[in-house]
Amino acid sequence: MSSIYAGSLQLSLFGQSHGEAIGMTLDGFPAGMQIDTEALRAEMNRRRPGTSRVTTARQEDDRVEFLSGVLNGRTTGQPICGVIYNHGQHSKDYGDGVDVIRPSHADYTGHVRYFGFEDWRGGGSFSGRLTAPIVAAGSLCRQYLRSQGVEILGHILSIGKVQDESFQACFREMQDWDNWKEGIRAPEGEALPTISGVSDSMREEIYRAAAEQDSVGGQVECLVHGLPAGLGAPFFDSVESTLARLLFSVPGVKGVSFGDGFGLSWMLGSEANDAFALIEKQVVTQTNHAGGINGGITNGMPVTVRCALRPTPSIGKAQGSVSLSRMEEEELTIRGRHDPCIVPRALPVVEAMVAIGIMDLWKERAACLT
Amino acid sequence: MSSIYAGSLQLSLFGQSHGEAIGMTLDGFPAGMQIDTEALRAEMNRRRPGTSRVTTARQEDDRVEFLSGVLNGRTTGQPICGVIYNHGQHSKDYGDGVDVIRPSHADYTGHVRYFGFEDWRGGGSFSGRLTAPIVAAGSLCRQYLRSQGVEILGHILSIGKVQDESFQACFREMQDWDNWKEGIRAPEGEALPTISGVSDSMREEIYRAAAEQDSVGGQVECLVHGLPAGLGAPFFDSVESTLARLLFSVPGVKGVSFGDGFGLSWMLGSEANDAFALIEKQVVTQTNHAGGINGGITNGMPVTVRCALRPTPSIGKAQGSVSLSRMEEEELTIRGRHDPCIVPRALPVVEAMVAIGIMDLWKERAACLT
Amino acid sequence: MSSIYAGSLQLSLFGQSHGEAIGMTLDGFPAGMQIDTEALRAEMNRRRPGTSRVTTARQEDDRVEFLSGVLNGRTTGQPICGVIYNHGQHSKDYGDGVDVIRPSHADYTGHVRYFGFEDWRGGGSFSGRLTAPIVAAGSLCRQYLRSQGVEILGHILSIGKVQDESFQACFREMQDWDNWKEGIRAPEGEALPTISGVSDSMREEIYRAAAEQDSVGGQVECLVHGLPAGLGAPFFDSVESTLARLLFSVPGVKGVSFGDGFGLSWMLGSEANDAFALIEKQVVTQTNHAGGINGGITNGMPVTVRCALRPTPSIGKAQGSVSLSRMEEEELTIRGRHDPCIVPRALPVVEAMVAIGIMDLWKERAACLT
Amino acid sequence: MSSIYAGSLQLSLFGQSHGEAIGMTLDGFPAGMQIDTEALRAEMNRRRPGTSRVTTARQEDDRVEFLSGVLNGRTTGQPICGVIYNHGQHSKDYGDGVDVIRPSHADYTGHVRYFGFEDWRGGGSFSGRLTAPIVAAGSLCRQYLRSQGVEILGHILSIGKVQDESFQACFREMQDWDNWKEGIRAPEGEALPTISGVSDSMREEIYRAAAEQDSVGGQVECLVHGLPAGLGAPFFDSVESTLARLLFSVPGVKGVSFGDGFGLSWMLGSEANDAFALIEKQVVTQTNHAGGINGGITNGMPVTVRCALRPTPSIGKAQGSVSLSRMEEEELTIRGRHDPCIVPRALPVVEAMVAIGIMDLWKERAACLT
Repeated sequence: MSSIYAGSLQLSLFGQSHGEAIGMTLDGFPAGMQIDTEALRAEMNRRRPGTSRVTTARQEDDRVEFLSGVLNGRTTGQPICGVIYNHGQHSKDYGDGVDVIRPSHADYTGHVRYFGFEDWRGGGSFSGRLTAPIVAAGSLCRQYLRSQGVEILGHILSIGKVQDESFQACFREMQDWDNWKEGIRAPEGEALPTISGVSDSMREEIYRAAAEQDSVGGQVECLVHGLPAGLGAPFFDSVESTLARLLFSVPGVKGVSFGDGFGLSWMLGSEANDAFALIEKQVVTQTNHAGGINGGITNGMPVTVRCALRPTPSIGKAQGSVSLSRMEEEELTIRGRHDPCIVPRALPVVEAMVAIGIMDLWKERAACLT
Repeated sequence: MSSIYAGSLQLSLFGQSHGEAIGMTLDGFPAGMQIDTEALRAEMNRRRPGTSRVTTARQEDDRVEFLSGVLNGRTTGQPICGVIYNHGQHSKDYGDGVDVIRPSHADYTGHVRYFGFEDWRGGGSFSGRLTAPIVAAGSLCRQYLRSQGVEILGHILSIGKVQDESFQACFREMQDWDNWKEGIRAPEGEALPTISGVSDSMREEIYRAAAEQDSVGGQVECLVHGLPAGLGAPFFDSVESTLARLLFSVPGVKGVSFGDGFGLSWMLGSEANDAFALIEKQVVTQTNHAGGINGGITNGMPVTVRCALRPTPSIGKAQGSVSLSRMEEEELTIRGRHDPCIVPRALPVVEAMVAIGIMDLWKERAACLT
Repeated sequence: MSSIYAGSLQLSLFGQSHGEAIGMTLDGFPAGMQIDTEALRAEMNRRRPGTSRVTTARQEDDRVEFLSGVLNGRTTGQPICGVIYNHGQHSKDYGDGVDVIRPSHADYTGHVRYFGFEDWRGGGSFSGRLTAPIVAAGSLCRQYLRSQGVEILGHILSIGKVQDESFQACFREMQDWDNWKEGIRAPEGEALPTISGVSDSMREEIYRAAAEQDSVGGQVECLVHGLPAGLGAPFFDSVESTLARLLFSVPGVKGVSFGDGFGLSWMLGSEANDAFALIEKQVVTQTNHAGGINGGITNGMPVTVRCALRPTPSIGKAQGSVSLSRMEEEELTIRGRHDPCIVPRALPVVEAMVAIGIMDLWKERAACLT
Repeated sequence: MSSIYAGSLQLSLFGQSHGEAIGMTLDGFPAGMQIDTEALRAEMNRRRPGTSRVTTARQEDDRVEFLSGVLNGRTTGQPICGVIYNHGQHSKDYGDGVDVIRPSHADYTGHVRYFGFEDWRGGGSFSGRLTAPIVAAGSLCRQYLRSQGVEILGHILSIGKVQDESFQACFREMQDWDNWKEGIRAPEGEALPTISGVSDSMREEIYRAAAEQDSVGGQVECLVHGLPAGLGAPFFDSVESTLARLLFSVPGVKGVSFGDGFGLSWMLGSEANDAFALIEKQVVTQTNHAGGINGGITNGMPVTVRCALRPTPSIGKAQGSVSLSRMEEEELTIRGRHDPCIVPRALPVVEAMVAIGIMDLWKERAACLT
């Protein structure tokens, strides 16, 4: 089921980087939602390459066309198929193709998995381009969740060695939600939204890597505000299991954590526990080390999640490789236009995956009867 | 599907901490495997409490009885149901029950999720006790994988501030597999297996926390050796997605990463990429920053995964809480026998989950036809 | 996933005829339902052998013990594991075992499927005994549905050549539901409930087959009353697809149909269509040829379904067979106590499967948001 | 999961009758198969309307375009997305739309299910048009199975009162497979393939219904030749459960049976049992009442399945209905071009569903390890 996510909500992906189109089918989505096409376009643009100097100069046209499931601008409750047609791909830029395998790409593993029949052009099914339909699906989920008072907010936690403040440090401030959230994304259209205003330093970190024909990794952090307590379940459909399965589907993600994450492993219980309190007859916690999740179930506090993204494997520097046709070692130098840092474009994808996962849990919760 | 994992391999869990029995049904397991009951018992004992001073003094009898799927000591290919009967539970030790909710436990979230009808005794469905059937299932998977030349090895990466060396630093040494692996678990029966011999320091870290009525967290690291290239797939059933979904089902796990994990986010591409080479006509990588996975698919190198475990939330120190019956804030002091550190007992559970996930991927791979 | 049904409701089965126990895990069941143990016992008894002369004289003790998911007699919302321990099995009665394969049994196919490692004793995983946990799960679903005003009613439609009237012919009468339904099951404890009072003739049909060391087939019909319109969906989760998948899991079922079923294939559209009308502002149909389902979705009329059951394959007459050990043709005469007709005991199983399927659709419907 | 079938093989459908396109994504399909585009086109044409006088005169262009999963005419092992663009639909022919609900259509149930937001144009998601992508997916499965020696053959078993001979009566003849199968489909391009040559009588039955502004039902029968023993499993993934779930997804199917089906219910065990014998060291059965399936698992004999199809609900005769807008009873006369009998066009869809189901079982079998 590699391309199909079949929970209470279902998502099916298709397409390769250099095929005619890429797309997704989203099933189980609520009927009657008016689609905010501006919000959708904005999300698509955040992921789209070529919109700023920190990403690749490649131009992709990421307009979503709905082939089904939408009537008069509203969702019908039936499967929503959204397609993005491919234009202006430069297959020849991608070098020698699958013969000389690109280190830390899926050239080799895809070749083994698909017995040499895989569509390798531009990364094929493994291309970051496949995340465009994910953003489209995520945008719909996000719009629905927003109508229920649930908001998803993300920022760049780090680029290389440049570190932003964490949502975990803002637990008190974010209780004044409307004011606090204003500070995150400004200025408008910023590809590197941060809490502490380190976007410029991050940008320099990326330029520095790019100048050396290199790439650089980073982390993103995401927050879900407004969730009621009671979503999720222990074990295989815990909030963490649900979100992590989706997040590790994002190319380049090599680590996922919740709340204080790996930091919790260094703590004492008395430091890590979130004491309960009452505010206006509501059970709340006084801290949020657990990232809003106890025993796999939301506790009503903001859910916080972090993803570690590896540096883009496509770099201009010479690397050791192997030619599959000649079965000889061979040095490889990758040419073409590549993201020196995938993190800014990964952020909207991570937010989309969080939206999809939360929507899945939301639906599952609705099916809990008494 | 909270208690059911339905991949190419299927696992269904049942039981609560203080019910009559806990257990699992494992379906899709290969027919004809002679069960190594000694190996099974050894795995169960590693997880069982009361076996060393670093864990709780509670005694649990974790003998697995197979109700189905086994005939004359061999698996039949039919659903394997393994049950562990509960004995000698002391429900009254667990204090005031669900009324005054224990911080960072699932008392509150379970109460909301199950509308107040949950079995709260001893943690109910959320109890670490539920991991016993997981170890049983994992042991069977492990035995099968071993017969195919695949081994799973784990160690304690850190307890509190005490850090062991990482598998990631041993990539060259482990190529001399048989010699190298001998060094990890010695001495026999060690609850805190380490690479660099820091078990004693870790033990002291745990005693220190216990002495202060506190608990301490840690990390475990796990390695899968002998996997062929080609297991897994891009997106929702990537190796990372499959394993992470299972690992985040383990109570207390708040972070999961692969290869260099979060460390990759601070690297340049030229540092993080694993160059290819040829050894005896086999494609290999010269480093293993990616933890044996490219594009969600195994590349033939050891798969490495880390889990961050939070400190046990049950601590003897007074904590802020809320009485659900009176809806008043109230201080809570938890009594009873608890693990000052869950990490040693979590290690076999994490290894079991890795075995289950790899077995699932193994079966999925077998269904890939040409 | 042979033993696991993973819809909005999940059911996992385990056990073999001659193992220590058989059972089921039901997950996703609503929290807080007081279990009616009398109703559960009554359902179990209907399926249990040895209760009347029309079934086998074998005695089985079908007491359900809940290992989890029930507290103080109420469901907790957590996985419900129900176990039935096996007692007093006479393995030796089953003849030569898997060597000389019983015609139309699963001896041969199970042998191939499980590579000769299967538990063949008494039919192993294929035994009708495995339907006991299904009845247990179905009884819980039925109790929940009843609390929502939904009732499931079944009767024997035919035994051999003896035919009862069909629910399809009672569409008008059943609109006076409470009075009408009283007529079906009388007299109390009747193993062969019929509409037109042909139980005695059916009983004779069974005795006649038994007297000749033979067996006889039959049909059952089931009705779901009180369902709202809107359950189900087109395609793979249609009401028909959902119920048929479950019903064809019942050993011996070789045909399933809805409404007028195969009879519809001989009709004209003007005969088969169910015209709409209004009764008290409610949309109703004037006939119910479609069995309450249009386009895979309930229309508010009673859902009606029929199952054809083959004659029990275990007969005392000599049959042509093959010895697997000698790979020679060999005549086989089956001894032991067997049902001359499985239909009376299959009826509660079919009703249970319908209850499970409707419960699954009920939960799925609850997750449809706007 | 209404539009997604997620077994060992996965299929996701999308589209509505009057949307821009309809299509499917097929995942888990083997890599490296050269697609026979002629065979695909031929299958699509069999389902396509407007090809003979027994079907609607509407013209649809059913050319399948592969957006992904195919490279140089070969499957890549990655998700195959096939799209069929809609052209020349006449929405206005469909009358008053969802206001006055068409009897035995999904107008009313879809309206309830989707809360009034459904795409009702031309039947929306419920349209028979959605079966076109199913035929495309089925054709690929069929091509793969053929390469493994497995063939799927179907015929019209009945139209109205006109009955063809059954495959069940041909068990001996079909053992001379190559000669026997030649007799079924002749003459070439026959929309009503029969065994006993009653196509002309069937055609007249259809003309007669059409002349009276009416429609007529029928049955199709399908056979799978060349299957090895051992596919399938007891319970939820039995061969019968797997195929029935898929077959009941076909609009208009109201009954499914295997082997002698409902006829088995009237038999004695001694009549219904299939005695075993040996032919060239192979276990075979002397009859095939069970339709090649024992205990949910194939026994190596041909699998036979029947489907009952209701008459097309769209008829020109006046029918009782209800106006949803006015909530008044109102007579409805449906105008436009409709199939007087859906059976000829349903046959390739049924065959496609059988191919998809067998392929799913085939893959599941491949994952059975020892």
